[in-house]
Amino acid sequence: MFELTHLTWREVRETARTGIALLPIGSQEQHAGHLPMGTDTLLVEAVVDAALAELGDDGPGVVRLPSLPFGHSPHHLFAAAVSLSAPTLAAVLADILGSLAESGFRRILVVNGHGGNDEIMRLAVKRFALDADVSAAACSYWTVTEGGDDGENPGATPGHAGWFETSLMLAAKPGLVRETDPWQPVDPAPLFDKPPYPGLTVERHGEWARVGGTTDDASLATAEAGRNLLEHRAAGLAGAIRAFDAATAHSHGNQ
Amino acid sequence: MFELTHLTWREVRETARTGIALLPIGSQEQHAGHLPMGTDTLLVEAVVDAALAELGDDGPGVVRLPSLPFGHSPHHLFAAAVSLSAPTLAAVLADILGSLAESGFRRILVVNGHGGNDEIMRLAVKRFALDADVSAAACSYWTVTEGGDDGENPGATPGHAGWFETSLMLAAKPGLVRETDPWQPVDPAPLFDKPPYPGLTVERHGEWARVGGTTDDASLATAEAGRNLLEHRAAGLAGAIRAFDAATAHSHGNQ
Amino acid sequence: MFELTHLTWREVRETARTGIALLPIGSQEQHAGHLPMGTDTLLVEAVVDAALAELGDDGPGVVRLPSLPFGHSPHHLFAAAVSLSAPTLAAVLADILGSLAESGFRRILVVNGHGGNDEIMRLAVKRFALDADVSAAACSYWTVTEGGDDGENPGATPGHAGWFETSLMLAAKPGLVRETDPWQPVDPAPLFDKPPYPGLTVERHGEWARVGGTTDDASLATAEAGRNLLEHRAAGLAGAIRAFDAATAHSHGNQ
Amino acid sequence: MFELTHLTWREVRETARTGIALLPIGSQEQHAGHLPMGTDTLLVEAVVDAALAELGDDGPGVVRLPSLPFGHSPHHLFAAAVSLSAPTLAAVLADILGSLAESGFRRILVVNGHGGNDEIMRLAVKRFALDADVSAAACSYWTVTEGGDDGENPGATPGHAGWFETSLMLAAKPGLVRETDPWQPVDPAPLFDKPPYPGLTVERHGEWARVGGTTDDASLATAEAGRNLLEHRAAGLAGAIRAFDAATAHSHGNQ
Amino acid sequence: MFELTHLTWREVRETARTGIALLPIGSQEQHAGHLPMGTDTLLVEAVVDAALAELGDDGPGVVRLPSLPFGHSPHHLFAAAVSLSAPTLAAVLADILGSLAESGFRRILVVNGHGGNDEIMRLAVKRFALDADVSAAACSYWTVTEGGDDGENPGATPGHAGWFETSLMLAAKPGLVRETDPWQPVDPAPLFDKPPYPGLTVERHGEWARVGGTTDDASLATAEAGRNLLEHRAAGLAGAIRAFDAATAHSHGNQ
Amino acid sequence: MFELTHLTWREVRETARTGIALLPIGSQEQHAGHLPMGTDTLLVEAVVDAALAELGDDGPGVVRLPSLPFGHSPHHLFAAAVSLSAPTLAAVLADILGSLAESGFRRILVVNGHGGNDEIMRLAVKRFALDADVSAAACSYWTVTEGGDDGENPGATPGHAGWFETSLMLAAKPGLVRETDPWQPVDPAPLFDKPPYPGLTVERHGEWARVGGTTDDASLATAEAGRNLLEHRAAGLAGAIRAFDAATAHSHGNQ
Repeated sequence: MFELTHLTWREVRETARTGIALLPIGSQEQHAGHLPMGTDTLLVEAVVDAALAELGDDGPGVVRLPSLPFGHSPHHLFAAAVSLSAPTLAAVLADILGSLAESGFRRILVVNGHGGNDEIMRLAVKRFALDADVSAAACSYWTVTEGGDDGENPGATPGHAGWFETSLMLAAKPGLVRETDPWQPVDPAPLFDKPPYPGLTVERHGEWARVGGTTDDASLATAEAGRNLLEHRAAGLAGAIRAFDAATAHSHGNQ
Repeated sequence: MFELTHLTWREVRETARTGIALLPIGSQEQHAGHLPMGTDTLLVEAVVDAALAELGDDGPGVVRLPSLPFGHSPHHLFAAAVSLSAPTLAAVLADILGSLAESGFRRILVVNGHGGNDEIMRLAVKRFALDADVSAAACSYWTVTEGGDDGENPGATPGHAGWFETSLMLAAKPGLVRETDPWQPVDPAPLFDKPPYPGLTVERHGEWARVGGTTDDASLATAEAGRNLLEHRAAGLAGAIRAFDAATAHSHGNQ
Repeated sequence: MFELTHLTWREVRETARTGIALLPIGSQEQHAGHLPMGTDTLLVEAVVDAALAELGDDGPGVVRLPSLPFGHSPHHLFAAAVSLSAPTLAAVLADILGSLAESGFRRILVVNGHGGNDEIMRLAVKRFALDADVSAAACSYWTVTEGGDDGENPGATPGHAGWFETSLMLAAKPGLVRETDPWQPVDPAPLFDKPPYPGLTVERHGEWARVGGTTDDASLATAEAGRNLLEHRAAGLAGAIRAFDAATAHSHGNQ
Repeated sequence: MFELTHLTWREVRETARTGIALLPIGSQEQHAGHLPMGTDTLLVEAVVDAALAELGDDGPGVVRLPSLPFGHSPHHLFAAAVSLSAPTLAAVLADILGSLAESGFRRILVVNGHGGNDEIMRLAVKRFALDADVSAAACSYWTVTEGGDDGENPGATPGHAGWFETSLMLAAKPGLVRETDPWQPVDPAPLFDKPPYPGLTVERHGEWARVGGTTDDASLATAEAGRNLLEHRAAGLAGAIRAFDAATAHSHGNQ
Repeated sequence: MFELTHLTWREVRETARTGIALLPIGSQEQHAGHLPMGTDTLLVEAVVDAALAELGDDGPGVVRLPSLPFGHSPHHLFAAAVSLSAPTLAAVLADILGSLAESGFRRILVVNGHGGNDEIMRLAVKRFALDADVSAAACSYWTVTEGGDDGENPGATPGHAGWFETSLMLAAKPGLVRETDPWQPVDPAPLFDKPPYPGLTVERHGEWARVGGTTDDASLATAEAGRNLLEHRAAGLAGAIRAFDAATAHSHGNQ
Repeated sequence: MFELTHLTWREVRETARTGIALLPIGSQEQHAGHLPMGTDTLLVEAVVDAALAELGDDGPGVVRLPSLPFGHSPHHLFAAAVSLSAPTLAAVLADILGSLAESGFRRILVVNGHGGNDEIMRLAVKRFALDADVSAAACSYWTVTEGGDDGENPGATPGHAGWFETSLMLAAKPGLVRETDPWQPVDPAPLFDKPPYPGLTVERHGEWARVGGTTDDASLATAEAGRNLLEHRAAGLAGAIRAFDAATAHSHGNQ
């Protein structure tokens, strides 16, 4: 594994021929009273670190870009956030992907740590592979799992600043987790988190402020659950990287 | 149910107070050798028609807009398509949603018939409800089902121009279905349809042209399967409309 | 005549070689108390239908696209409208025209039903033919006439929701015409309709709301006048299509 | 009459209350072998000069902006031009009109010297008056005439670099007119100048280069015809300014 | 020296091969109570006139474009200005530079008269030379000096509507200079003019209105100082043109 | 000093009232054969770290954002870079600055590590302070010095991948510096680095590739020079922060 930041341009050109460029993207946004603004960035980095460690020297050559620390978080500005608009984030991803192709990469993977980035990331990857002779992949870290039992709580995954993220932070960055506020569920539950019908997305104005910025009871989180979650996500991401490598080796002209 | 096209502006203002505006969106794009360019538009209209018929006079007041007959289909231009770029489709949806709010609507539902529109539609709905005091909902017609057994073939749902869409067209518009070409699966299967790892999206350049524009064997399609699929989607959409109505009644100031 | 919606992509490619793609564009906007929101779309479709019927099998091959049912109507939002902004409509037309060329068409005609679309349509057609090796044409349905006496009332043509459009609707969609409100001319007459000097366009803020959304007395309209108007516009459009065909046959490489 | 360039900002604020801001817009583009690149700018300035002289001290207070010397001329780049794209020119006009309103003006007139600017100018004026409490007007100098006999040649008005513009230049800037090339009409005549059917706009790719950049025989031009044309256009523009003043005095709040 | 406005397109193509296109850009904005709105445009034109006169027939062939009379002046709208937004001005410059290259020029110089245009001009020149095979140069007229003693007052150069610009106007356009208001320095001095630390740019909201639109005491200005300043700037610009010519002759393919 | 990434949103709101938000921006781009892609980001972070350490607890409250690791580097794509276009970087900065203001900050400082970002950063800061009631500041780390003798080499400051940056990297990140290639000056020297006339910016197409991506002889660099440079820049930045704090305390409403 290589850090793009540390490579010279000739090393970039050389690794780009057969390697995979990996871009983590996160956010800076309110995570209730007990988690820090950078939670999504810190967690996607923790999962990527662990996945690359698991791949070790046997895996495909991965060149890791510095994380994009800002994401699309306008719904959290009622409290505090550093948010890129949807067109801005789309432009950033298009420019990064285009630069990587121009610098020689043919296989690129974006790993996301923030739900609000998801659609924009998928659109960016699709448009990119349509125009350039590349294979481009994307995932959000909580959706790539190797399956199996990891003590999970599907109704609270990933949620926002609740059991899932708090457990992961207790495992990955315990020093940054403050005491949780007492959980006060709102009634009705927020529509963005619990759609009123399967397959239907509903957005109601002002919903994030109404529910106070959390989706479920963070006081149920434990470091042990977090270690399990982290381990399975890391294994899942490692598996996804191996699978992407296998599926796209020899797909493009200059490899 | 009302057609926006047929209402006077005073009727629009009156129905907008408590009603739901419903916008179907589709596409014009290649659907292999046996289905017509407008398949996605025809099918979303068929599902919406049937759902509104099922709701009847007891349901919430729905004002149906004319379908947007063009979607985001750049991946089908290798054959033939009328495609709006992602920024253009985003702008169209933002303008339509904004106009509806300015004309008095507080609850709006977008029903989609084409996979390529999905992310753009969800982004549009989210951004809209963030800025305006409205509830906005979105679904793709194949994802809202009331569950139960409908003789489905999950591995081929929705696919593109395969068993699912061909069955539906045999039920809804049989006169427009030509004889299918013999099915020749490509190896490896296209990455956009069968990701190499759960939760991972992969886009490889040139994949749609390589696989000839179809995801699975359309010759397996039957009109009977299509009638089942259509019935369950219509019931699902009717249920989604009722649930949206129940969840958002009395949510906004001028209701 | 073919409907693009009904053709397979191979049929599109085949007809595109020598045929003409025809795109109707309309609007959804207030048309006073007696005409429906979709008046402009309904009328452009009625004229196109009649013109294509008149051309019959002897005419050039025309592939008709589904109408764009939304236009540029910000001046009608004081009452009700679904309006695309000028940049959005320009982008939609550019994307549609570009897709048609990419799908093989070399000759394209846009037929417009709403005054507010006019400049944007003409700009789109000009830019398109500058960049691509095509011939592109545009007209508003009320300006292509074969001349002759059609009982016209030039001072009220086309106007908005007045004698002209109401007569046409009485001929084409009588069931959608409600009783007209008593005519109350405003003084001074609206500047957008009666410029204070020949050749001078003047726009005064708030003028559409001041005059109540109508330009002239709709109660003078009759179905008979409407049938005359419709017949002459259809004949005019048929003539325009024949003339476009004759002027541009063999103009482009792949024909 | 005042030049904006020469006024202090306090004089601008004072004249803006009841005066009319006048913006001439032109182009820099090929005008065949005998007329200079700046023909359209020079001619619109000549007409504006003469009209303002005719109005004299009795007319409404007019504050004249410096001409925008560049217009929308992509169709002349086959030879030579300095062209703003359509979105750029639209943005320039929106910024200028918005600045004038912010600086206190309530009545603004754009006078155009180049056909390619026409639609963009009209759109800009409409959008501006929709958003701001102003009256905005626009004309192309060749369309505002007081009528009467001016020895005109309607089939060649305005054309491009032909009888009309050459005559005017012989009257206004004789030192800049070179000897005309012998006239060689092309067959068929260019579609942009002679549409194949009344009311139909047709643009064929490459047409300007095919016809060599001129629409009609410039050798027929005379300085006397030019003086007549100039005099009647100036009288027309003076009349249009008076009419605009009369129609919009006392229309806006701060007057 | 040639005026682009006066050349035919064939003369443009011929001079473009080895000549330099020169574009002056200015502004229309408040210049306190004693200087006119067009001060920046008038001064850049005065310096360019004098520099080209100094170069005479021995210098490189320069084709002078008409000045862009509007610049980026949003900070002066509190009083009065005609301002292009930053994206608009960037688009205008990109379109002009691109047109010049498309018309045959390989060497282009932008000469600026307004501080607010500076960054936008430099960005435009850089982007242009990156994409096109050209050499592009830019300067603000007050920064190109041949050095030497010109009686200067560095602390007040260029400032805004103070000693520097008023002196130049007394030399170049004395009839447009009104009596200065008594100088009332504000405390603290405006941060945009006197940064609190070397190398640090600070912008505080509302600062231009707070200081009344002037940076220093204009009553100290004299026509003699203005003549010196003008002479040295003209000599500097003439030197810069000679140096640009020498450095880039034979740099590009078609020369 | 606080890391935004580590704060909860309530801590952000509290520190924002009187604190200064500090955003470092860098780049990923070729730095010759001996320095890594992330040089500019690493160096701006080193200077910021040292400056904040020097300020200690007595300085103003500074909330440090995560660095933006990508900048505007299109001129380095001939070798390798991850570059944001100028409009994209402008949008990113506008969104970040706007979010900070919306989250409560009134004083914001951008510290830049890459020459190519300079104009875009200054424009962003100016536009931001025009619209919002804030004080915004910007500097590039090499331009804020406390003066004094630091063994500097003005002709090579900052340059690109030469004596200045290599010395700093030898001091800050010695493990990432490879052996320098032998220095081969090109003749003529690159115009972007040595303008042919004082005050004149010249950009010649292809210049970066011609000179091989370096401006001066990196083999002259030493760690000791680097420590001096770093110390003086850190002291300069600490001074700039103190001065910004002093100049803008109590400038804005909610402080």
